[in-house]
Amino acid sequence: MRQLFELCGRDEEVRFSPYVWRIRMAMKHKGLDFEGVAVRFLNKQPLESAQSKTVPVLNDDGTWVKDSFDIALYLEKTYPDAPLFGGAIAEGQARLLNAFIDNTVVRGIFPMIVADIHARLDEKNGAYFRETREKFLGCSLEEAQAGRDAALPKLRAALTPIRHTLMAQPFLSGDAPAWADYCLFGTLMWARIASDFELLGEDDPIHEWREGMLDMFDGYARAAKLGY
Amino acid sequence: MRQLFELCGRDEEVRFSPYVWRIRMAMKHKGLDFEGVAVRFLNKQPLESAQSKTVPVLNDDGTWVKDSFDIALYLEKTYPDAPLFGGAIAEGQARLLNAFIDNTVVRGIFPMIVADIHARLDEKNGAYFRETREKFLGCSLEEAQAGRDAALPKLRAALTPIRHTLMAQPFLSGDAPAWADYCLFGTLMWARIASDFELLGEDDPIHEWREGMLDMFDGYARAAKLGY
Repeated sequence: MRQLFELCGRDEEVRFSPYVWRIRMAMKHKGLDFEGVAVRFLNKQPLESAQSKTVPVLNDDGTWVKDSFDIALYLEKTYPDAPLFGGAIAEGQARLLNAFIDNTVVRGIFPMIVADIHARLDEKNGAYFRETREKFLGCSLEEAQAGRDAALPKLRAALTPIRHTLMAQPFLSGDAPAWADYCLFGTLMWARIASDFELLGEDDPIHEWREGMLDMFDGYARAAKLGY
Repeated sequence: MRQLFELCGRDEEVRFSPYVWRIRMAMKHKGLDFEGVAVRFLNKQPLESAQSKTVPVLNDDGTWVKDSFDIALYLEKTYPDAPLFGGAIAEGQARLLNAFIDNTVVRGIFPMIVADIHARLDEKNGAYFRETREKFLGCSLEEAQAGRDAALPKLRAALTPIRHTLMAQPFLSGDAPAWADYCLFGTLMWARIASDFELLGEDDPIHEWREGMLDMFDGYARAAKLGY
């Protein structure tokens, strides 16, 4: 049985990790079935078989793989049909694209939704999240999030390379979606599930692309349970 | 005969366009000979056969192609050996990487070397450059460049995704250089040829990678004539 270990909120059906969503979409892309297994911040013992402290972790019928990008590379090698990269150069480039998306999009969004994420957690996991994240942020979750309207133009400006790409071609990976698309889309699913704060203007080409991604695989992502 | 049209300085042997350098390296990568043809800001008539107002323009024995990324795609299609991308997904991803490098690296470096670029030009082309660029910058070339020491930490921070990638693999394209590497390296050659201002710390992994790129193809880029 193929298992994907996923972070969940108070409601076990609310699965909000940006990195897990990248793999969820990659598995759908390759037509691979999987069972999602819920994990909480304070109960990561199920991840120990992969010697990991973070999700996602994949148990592919006894083969354990951790780290979303390494899981993507593993899936590509093990199930080469429906390529996520289609070659060594694309795999190499994807590491830079991942780093760009993590640095710009994940870091840009984080303070904007951090109190909303907290609100999706149960008391015990919420207390852990607050303590660790307030240390990282250097302020309260609520203070960090309060600046989001003012920070929004800067985030949108940082998305310029993505916007320009989607004005020239339908997907980040060209004519059809592949890993780069799932990498960004998974990140945006994190915000969608945890928060009702709208990151993108309606006239933003990234908005239109996101709508298309929500519809893929019979509306798989659109049907995801929201945390609010 | 294969001709590559290139922007030059007062000294015709000083060829400093970041976009031309991307193609120079891509041509070397594919083992293609070419003759560089010098063009100046105020004499772009040679580019008209490609209906282009900017370099690079390629005349591949009668086939005219403009725009550095489109030239790269043309080279890949026409000369598939020694791939620059190696597949449709990598070509799609590369558009985003190009946009990231243009947005972050080209725009970040531009004010830091703009007065140095001007110093490489003859009087007539320099006057044109000053007028158009000061309009764009909203200040004098010298004022823009004077802020470069203060701006350097921000530029280096913006290079974080590139740095992280080169800490995980030897090239942006994986185990060997390809388009993403030439795209960034060409941009850095622009700074190298126009200015003696050092953008990278000696302990920066990007610095080491750049040294390796300078040595490629028998030191082709290292032998380029500097403008100072």
